[in-house]
Amino acid sequence: MSTIFKRASQKAGLSPGTLIPVGTRTDGKVKISLWEYNEDHYQEKVLETVKEYLPSKDPTTVTWINVEGLDDTATIETLGNRFSLHPLVLEDILHIGQRPKIEDYEDYVYLVFKMLQREGKAILIDQVSIILGPNYVLSFLEQESAVFDPVKERIRNAKGRLRKSGADYLAYALIDAIVDDYFGLVEQIGDHIESVEEELVARPLPNSVHGIHILKRQLMVLRNAVWPLREVVGGLQRGDSPLFKETTLIYLRDVYDHTIQIIDTTETYREMVSEMLDLYLSSLSNRLNEVIKVLTIISTIFIPLTFIVGVYGMNFRYMPELEWRWGYPVTWLVMIGIGVGMLGYFRKRRWI
Amino acid sequence: MSTIFKRASQKAGLSPGTLIPVGTRTDGKVKISLWEYNEDHYQEKVLETVKEYLPSKDPTTVTWINVEGLDDTATIETLGNRFSLHPLVLEDILHIGQRPKIEDYEDYVYLVFKMLQREGKAILIDQVSIILGPNYVLSFLEQESAVFDPVKERIRNAKGRLRKSGADYLAYALIDAIVDDYFGLVEQIGDHIESVEEELVARPLPNSVHGIHILKRQLMVLRNAVWPLREVVGGLQRGDSPLFKETTLIYLRDVYDHTIQIIDTTETYREMVSEMLDLYLSSLSNRLNEVIKVLTIISTIFIPLTFIVGVYGMNFRYMPELEWRWGYPVTWLVMIGIGVGMLGYFRKRRWI
Amino acid sequence: MSTIFKRASQKAGLSPGTLIPVGTRTDGKVKISLWEYNEDHYQEKVLETVKEYLPSKDPTTVTWINVEGLDDTATIETLGNRFSLHPLVLEDILHIGQRPKIEDYEDYVYLVFKMLQREGKAILIDQVSIILGPNYVLSFLEQESAVFDPVKERIRNAKGRLRKSGADYLAYALIDAIVDDYFGLVEQIGDHIESVEEELVARPLPNSVHGIHILKRQLMVLRNAVWPLREVVGGLQRGDSPLFKETTLIYLRDVYDHTIQIIDTTETYREMVSEMLDLYLSSLSNRLNEVIKVLTIISTIFIPLTFIVGVYGMNFRYMPELEWRWGYPVTWLVMIGIGVGMLGYFRKRRWI
Amino acid sequence: MSTIFKRASQKAGLSPGTLIPVGTRTDGKVKISLWEYNEDHYQEKVLETVKEYLPSKDPTTVTWINVEGLDDTATIETLGNRFSLHPLVLEDILHIGQRPKIEDYEDYVYLVFKMLQREGKAILIDQVSIILGPNYVLSFLEQESAVFDPVKERIRNAKGRLRKSGADYLAYALIDAIVDDYFGLVEQIGDHIESVEEELVARPLPNSVHGIHILKRQLMVLRNAVWPLREVVGGLQRGDSPLFKETTLIYLRDVYDHTIQIIDTTETYREMVSEMLDLYLSSLSNRLNEVIKVLTIISTIFIPLTFIVGVYGMNFRYMPELEWRWGYPVTWLVMIGIGVGMLGYFRKRRWI
Amino acid sequence: MSTIFKRASQKAGLSPGTLIPVGTRTDGKVKISLWEYNEDHYQEKVLETVKEYLPSKDPTTVTWINVEGLDDTATIETLGNRFSLHPLVLEDILHIGQRPKIEDYEDYVYLVFKMLQREGKAILIDQVSIILGPNYVLSFLEQESAVFDPVKERIRNAKGRLRKSGADYLAYALIDAIVDDYFGLVEQIGDHIESVEEELVARPLPNSVHGIHILKRQLMVLRNAVWPLREVVGGLQRGDSPLFKETTLIYLRDVYDHTIQIIDTTETYREMVSEMLDLYLSSLSNRLNEVIKVLTIISTIFIPLTFIVGVYGMNFRYMPELEWRWGYPVTWLVMIGIGVGMLGYFRKRRWI
Repeated sequence: MSTIFKRASQKAGLSPGTLIPVGTRTDGKVKISLWEYNEDHYQEKVLETVKEYLPSKDPTTVTWINVEGLDDTATIETLGNRFSLHPLVLEDILHIGQRPKIEDYEDYVYLVFKMLQREGKAILIDQVSIILGPNYVLSFLEQESAVFDPVKERIRNAKGRLRKSGADYLAYALIDAIVDDYFGLVEQIGDHIESVEEELVARPLPNSVHGIHILKRQLMVLRNAVWPLREVVGGLQRGDSPLFKETTLIYLRDVYDHTIQIIDTTETYREMVSEMLDLYLSSLSNRLNEVIKVLTIISTIFIPLTFIVGVYGMNFRYMPELEWRWGYPVTWLVMIGIGVGMLGYFRKRRWI
Repeated sequence: MSTIFKRASQKAGLSPGTLIPVGTRTDGKVKISLWEYNEDHYQEKVLETVKEYLPSKDPTTVTWINVEGLDDTATIETLGNRFSLHPLVLEDILHIGQRPKIEDYEDYVYLVFKMLQREGKAILIDQVSIILGPNYVLSFLEQESAVFDPVKERIRNAKGRLRKSGADYLAYALIDAIVDDYFGLVEQIGDHIESVEEELVARPLPNSVHGIHILKRQLMVLRNAVWPLREVVGGLQRGDSPLFKETTLIYLRDVYDHTIQIIDTTETYREMVSEMLDLYLSSLSNRLNEVIKVLTIISTIFIPLTFIVGVYGMNFRYMPELEWRWGYPVTWLVMIGIGVGMLGYFRKRRWI
Repeated sequence: MSTIFKRASQKAGLSPGTLIPVGTRTDGKVKISLWEYNEDHYQEKVLETVKEYLPSKDPTTVTWINVEGLDDTATIETLGNRFSLHPLVLEDILHIGQRPKIEDYEDYVYLVFKMLQREGKAILIDQVSIILGPNYVLSFLEQESAVFDPVKERIRNAKGRLRKSGADYLAYALIDAIVDDYFGLVEQIGDHIESVEEELVARPLPNSVHGIHILKRQLMVLRNAVWPLREVVGGLQRGDSPLFKETTLIYLRDVYDHTIQIIDTTETYREMVSEMLDLYLSSLSNRLNEVIKVLTIISTIFIPLTFIVGVYGMNFRYMPELEWRWGYPVTWLVMIGIGVGMLGYFRKRRWI
Repeated sequence: MSTIFKRASQKAGLSPGTLIPVGTRTDGKVKISLWEYNEDHYQEKVLETVKEYLPSKDPTTVTWINVEGLDDTATIETLGNRFSLHPLVLEDILHIGQRPKIEDYEDYVYLVFKMLQREGKAILIDQVSIILGPNYVLSFLEQESAVFDPVKERIRNAKGRLRKSGADYLAYALIDAIVDDYFGLVEQIGDHIESVEEELVARPLPNSVHGIHILKRQLMVLRNAVWPLREVVGGLQRGDSPLFKETTLIYLRDVYDHTIQIIDTTETYREMVSEMLDLYLSSLSNRLNEVIKVLTIISTIFIPLTFIVGVYGMNFRYMPELEWRWGYPVTWLVMIGIGVGMLGYFRKRRWI
Repeated sequence: MSTIFKRASQKAGLSPGTLIPVGTRTDGKVKISLWEYNEDHYQEKVLETVKEYLPSKDPTTVTWINVEGLDDTATIETLGNRFSLHPLVLEDILHIGQRPKIEDYEDYVYLVFKMLQREGKAILIDQVSIILGPNYVLSFLEQESAVFDPVKERIRNAKGRLRKSGADYLAYALIDAIVDDYFGLVEQIGDHIESVEEELVARPLPNSVHGIHILKRQLMVLRNAVWPLREVVGGLQRGDSPLFKETTLIYLRDVYDHTIQIIDTTETYREMVSEMLDLYLSSLSNRLNEVIKVLTIISTIFIPLTFIVGVYGMNFRYMPELEWRWGYPVTWLVMIGIGVGMLGYFRKRRWI
């Protein structure tokens, strides 16, 4: 967790707008792909460098530049110049510790999202930046990802409204793809919760608490990513930004519904995990009670009996009972009586 | 719980508006019934297929199409076309993981509700979609249900205001029927709480905690269904939608009161169940204390006595006490004295 | 608790406006009393039936009809017709599971309040409905009650502003009487809290937790009744209803202050009771610690000593110590040394 | 605590406006002092009775009447008449269970504050009422107090803005004095928290929990007094009341800052005390663990050894070991071996 | 903590506006530096006394006076007069117990911030006051600090927008420097949390709880400093103050994002630390369970056996078993049988 802040503090003190990629998990590779489409045709290119790109003059043609990998700051700067982006936007694209947010710069909207991925105990976080202009969309991912594949497929197939609509619908489609991606993670966590819970009901182990702990931590990360998402998508669907057309707002409302659903489930899971901890602790108490009951039953039965046999193990010269003919069997009877009495007492107390 | 999200993620990546029923519990049967009525007469039909239906031209006649079962997507699509519903509405009708919500599409209002049913430990959730247009109401249930029977009866009997009022009053009547349905569930849970509590006061068992746990889980599901209901009905009664007439708003305020009552009771129950857990845990502690007190009393009385008899069981050649005439009885006296002293100490400490 | 919902679900499915008294605790007796007064004279009658009543035509005369007992639905219906009340109002008067609320019907205001009464562990809840019209007040109680006696006295005595003011001041006086009634209950609970707390500090008993539990439950009921009261009286004092004149609003502000005070105290009491539970649980832990310390001290002192005397109780033929002249006293010295050493160790650890 | 409500319920049922001092801690003595000042001169008198007072006609002269002690209802009534105060204001002055509040009566503002004083475990609460009119201030205290002494000093010395400003600045100065008085209490509680915490870290005692409990209770009382203060002063500094001039608002903002600071510290202290309870409970658990570990170590070492020596204490005729030459020393070796093995096991488990 | 209030109460009772430095940690040294710059040139001076300073008449030149050390009240008063600051502002600069806040005095804005520094268990708090006028900035620190060094560097280097922009951009740069300073602290705490957590998972020690306790306390201080920061910076970026130009607001939005990020992380850390406490307590319970299980296993096996050997240690004259040829070996067999049976029972219960 604290690694996020290591990055941030590395930059502390620099003039705002200085372009240094901060804390990304990228592997040095950068892939820039260009899509241009309108209702009738589409074109798909992988750009070696962003300089070869000449933007379309036709206002009905939508241009989408998708940058995967943030290591090539020159490219990002060039893009920034061509689309006249504010220096702070470029800085935020590279500085991956942003919260999901929406920033309106009149000519374009800058959106930041998070993508989450579960890897063992940890949850990896990738930042996605989307810039929506009048007829273009720029998107920046930390590394190559399949998250936008369904959107690409829909551009290729010309199915649905995508090819017939403007850049704002493309932006919606990308956001929708990112939000849909959360469902998989939520589902995985749900399955994990179910399995931990079954284990807990069957037989609580000392290390069950660590499983609960990891779940809690993952849900915390998820919630931190998803709550600001709600504000962002909520703002969009209320029509805060004029770049999204009226007809697209209905679709954004749908994305908003999904976001709320993810939040609801996250909160429900958090509550379930908290209850699992309660369940675990009370089952610990129950087991302790049981162990101590066994100890007490055995001890309270045999300790008095051991005392009695000790008495007749004493070596006093004058102990009349020792000489009696029935001393030994009578002692046994007394001891059995005491044992049975104790058992009766425990049964009355419902310990047995 | 996580099954909800399995369904959702099955669809992830499809173009919005694709009609696939997602995650419904329906059994494949679909029943479509048509009601047409005005103040003077009414008509009730079961439709084989929705194509045979021709909508009424008379603006004073209310048309109600009630679809039970969501497996026949063709029918739903046909209805969607005839009533010019937005593709996202049709998608949401089929995709049953929606939250209760209200969506205003100018010509009609789309409402989503949940119906809950208790089955053992689980709570089954059914989605109800209601579409209110100027003089028609469409309702979609996941499977056949008796929930709307009282409304049907009132159409047949022409009792009350229903036949004299418009489609908005019918929509109100359906919503009222759904909300009234919650009272039964809340009552069941209330009875269950009472019985678990009585058991708890009488004698806490190790598995009482599971009963509490199930109650908590059920109340969580109930709350998740009921809180968004509040927003929906609250929005309606404030007159957010122009399709509801002024005179109907007073009735919606009544439904809203019921919703608040259900929420209040749910929250009260949640608090009661939390306290039951506290009660249970403190009774566990009490029992542990008691068991350990018994162990301590028995041990601390007999352990010193066993030591004493051990002393006179030693085989030293020179142990003067062993030769004494009154050694044995004096030892008994000493031991009785110690025992009585211990008991006195315990009584002083109020352990006995 | 769940009985409230039994009643509610009995009615589920009936057309709204059907008049059936639901769940009232009344004993079948109904008492209707009529008061008419202005500054100069007043008149007080017990009505056999409401039909004999002819409303005053004089706008300066205030009419107050107080109905105690809800079993005579015919009377209530007649009153409803004469004062043209909405059917839902009549239904709510009879259906006693309402929350405290205010409903404005232009010609009149409908107010619902709760009166609480402590009976052993339970808190009994009575519903009071007040209808304020231009120059009349109707009030409905579940059964005969002394709560309005001070108001009646003030009408008779013509003391204070009551006789000089309109129907809105009468309504204020009734509300004030109801709110003042809460102080008694709050005071009783406060006394109970004090006594449970003293008991707890003196000596926590296993069943103290039940006393705390009952207090919690009662405070929960109280809070549920009092929080909506705040909204109702708050709305009134802000002048939401035009039927209350400007000069009366200052008095309603006073009632509002009282309501806030009751809420504050309730919340304070809830916190105090929660802390009492903490106190109780930590005192349980302390007692457990103490018991176990005693057990440990006795055991750890005597168990090694018992081992030693056991050693010299063995019957080996060749045990040189047994033959020594000072074997027995030396053994005693060793054992006393061990015992004193143990005690010193415990003192160092501050167990004694 | 409940005593507050005893008072309140004594009055329940009386007509509003009846003047009876309710629940004050006054000793019967009443001291009325009169201050009149403007920029040039000032005058300070102790009044025997309020009747000798003739109010100043000069609008630039500020009149301050400070009443210490509430037992002389006649005086308060006379003052009420002279300054035409509403009967409810007079009632609230005498009825000391008010919350801090602000009430605007157009011609004057009525303000209620609380002064707190720590006395052992309890916190004593005094009510201060301040009435600000166009050129006069009335203040009512439950008993003689030094809280306003710095203000009096500033009137006498003509230092600062006080003598140059109007009645609203005097009211500000009084409020400021009351709020500053809280700092002392907060500081005392802070010192107490520090000392309890040091004691807790050094060595938790069974009755430490009572110290924590008292702190919690005191902080609860403090918070109850201070939160409504925030609303009152917040309302004043926003300029809710036209009697406070623009130039005075900046000073009230300063008082508001102090109030927020007191609230912040109170909340911080509450959190600290809650954590102290956690710390205490976990240290209890630790001690229990340690005690039980000692018991277990001693028991598990000696119980098997005691068994062994018991074996060779048996009196069977045919026990070959007893006759062996090295039986006794070998038994010792075995027993030492078991003991050392046990110790090794405990060390491995890190119990020692 | 309470030391803050010691200072405050020292001043209680003084007339507002009296200039006494309250509670600062300064060492008596005061350093005043003056910066004047515009796009073309800049000048940097250390002032012996503020009297030698003559403010620039040129509106495009920005003047920044940075005072490090608050002991020289005369200087602060002189500055106050030259820039016509309100007496309360001067008082607040010296009185270091302020909350972060923003106060608008039309001609200038007064801003208060906190700088935090970790020193062992404690967190030291320094107050920074910034006054922004039309073309000047005054800043007051409690002691010499390197926090503004990057800003000074940027003035010297004329890099970035700083030299080209007005006083508002300088104020932004100072605020940005202060906020960036928090990242280092947050990072340190994050590292500490990680190390405590690793220790906890490896092996919980009795004093781990103190580590958790210190973290909680530090996070509490951090949160108290950072939450009001949010309001202050949030107000600035919304453009509450006209002294900040439109173009600077975008940069303030960036600072606001950083603030939100710090708050998010602080809250996340608080949650993580709470969970660590749960983890610690449940691991304590687990260890207790284990210790008691060992005790129970050993005791329940050997206590009955010790009883048996005690039986045959009795000295009754008539005990037939003692004479039997196979009495001793049969007793061994019986005892081994009991021991094995017990072990089997424990294995069935899964204790071993």
